[in-house]
Amino acid sequence: MTYTLVLLRHGESDWNAKNLFTGWVDVDLTEKGRAEAVRGGELIKDAGLLPDVVHTSLQRRAITTACLSLDAADRHWIPVKRSWRLNERHYGALQGKDKKQTLEQYGEEQFMLWRRSFDTPPPPIADDDEFSQVGDPRYADLGDEMPRTECLEDVIARFLPYWDGEIVPDLQAGRTVLVAAHGNSLRALVKHLDGVSDEDIAGLNIPTGMPLVYRLDEDLRPTVPGGEYLDPEAAAAAAAAVANQGR
Amino acid sequence: MTYTLVLLRHGESDWNAKNLFTGWVDVDLTEKGRAEAVRGGELIKDAGLLPDVVHTSLQRRAITTACLSLDAADRHWIPVKRSWRLNERHYGALQGKDKKQTLEQYGEEQFMLWRRSFDTPPPPIADDDEFSQVGDPRYADLGDEMPRTECLEDVIARFLPYWDGEIVPDLQAGRTVLVAAHGNSLRALVKHLDGVSDEDIAGLNIPTGMPLVYRLDEDLRPTVPGGEYLDPEAAAAAAAAVANQGR
Repeated sequence: MTYTLVLLRHGESDWNAKNLFTGWVDVDLTEKGRAEAVRGGELIKDAGLLPDVVHTSLQRRAITTACLSLDAADRHWIPVKRSWRLNERHYGALQGKDKKQTLEQYGEEQFMLWRRSFDTPPPPIADDDEFSQVGDPRYADLGDEMPRTECLEDVIARFLPYWDGEIVPDLQAGRTVLVAAHGNSLRALVKHLDGVSDEDIAGLNIPTGMPLVYRLDEDLRPTVPGGEYLDPEAAAAAAAAVANQGR
Repeated sequence: MTYTLVLLRHGESDWNAKNLFTGWVDVDLTEKGRAEAVRGGELIKDAGLLPDVVHTSLQRRAITTACLSLDAADRHWIPVKRSWRLNERHYGALQGKDKKQTLEQYGEEQFMLWRRSFDTPPPPIADDDEFSQVGDPRYADLGDEMPRTECLEDVIARFLPYWDGEIVPDLQAGRTVLVAAHGNSLRALVKHLDGVSDEDIAGLNIPTGMPLVYRLDEDLRPTVPGGEYLDPEAAAAAAAAVANQGR
């Protein structure tokens, strides 16, 4: 008896294409990103994986990816659950900033610290910043819990309660679960599943629109460490491109 | 204190465009239908209606309409609930048949009886018909409850338990509710809300992609009988076109 979990990072977004730090800013997919989402759904269908339930963040790029990929997989009709706990990492004051300019302005060391440090968040975003989420009705219930910046450690801390409380019960009920989310919320999950160290997670990148399948044993341990991409060659090339952002 | 309910029939589908009886066959939207769904969402946004929850059928044309219209209304992130009880009327053995050919073959009287009789369903579809839903995993839980044909009375009988059990509690919790569904499941609801007689409901047509807003009092009675279309002129023209299908 194994549980089946399919992870899908949203397709390319407007700000992926423009090389801007996005975080909680609610940008849309590009046409390329829509095509990636459809392709991801086709791969899921061709692999005979039939999601019984989908979990998404509250962000457009993951929600639209879920709509498009499930439609392509003929599973558009399954139940949907959403939570801010699946959102991308909040990028603090970097939200809306150009990655290349930030690299040039602050230098390689600071840039990589903000991008990949496990426990050092960027400076917090001001509540009156144009890219702040203060006043966004979808986060009204969070109150003081709403982040103004996050490091990966923070993402893990707010993601894991949702994993334990909402996703694991679906898996244990025998459901094939699709999680349509973001680079860093999925890195948080992969770190947890594979027991990746705080150091090694810095080098792990998840490409857009590529379904990553984990078969988990009854103790929720991956039967294949790192999971398996449905299109491994394309995934390897795309992960290398993510690692080189800002260059 | 009034409750706000927004009804949205899916945009034009492939088989609306081809003038075929569709029922439970899971056809897609046309490009025109997608544009209608987006326009419906823009109207909802411009009217300052902010759905807090959406209810859809299990059919692609309503699900995609919900995705597109909520995205256009910036409410893509709200909770989603789905049920077969919001599906289109099952059209029985007519599913997949051309409306014009059916009119010519069976004559005006029989044609209108099948299309608009309150309590006379078309002949049931055979389980081995190419347009039967037997074996469709989304209906596996229904067992013998899965219809092989329906008249409007049947649609009301399977829709009302969902209305009472799932939609009314959302309204009573103060939520603005969007129902993205079908011509006949929405006619069933309108008949119930407005107390339309079994005879008069035959003449009531709901156009595709036009948000219809009901404000309900505490006894769930419409404050404006028949509700209000957000684009009344376009809705009247479109409803007339629905009435003339098959001509």
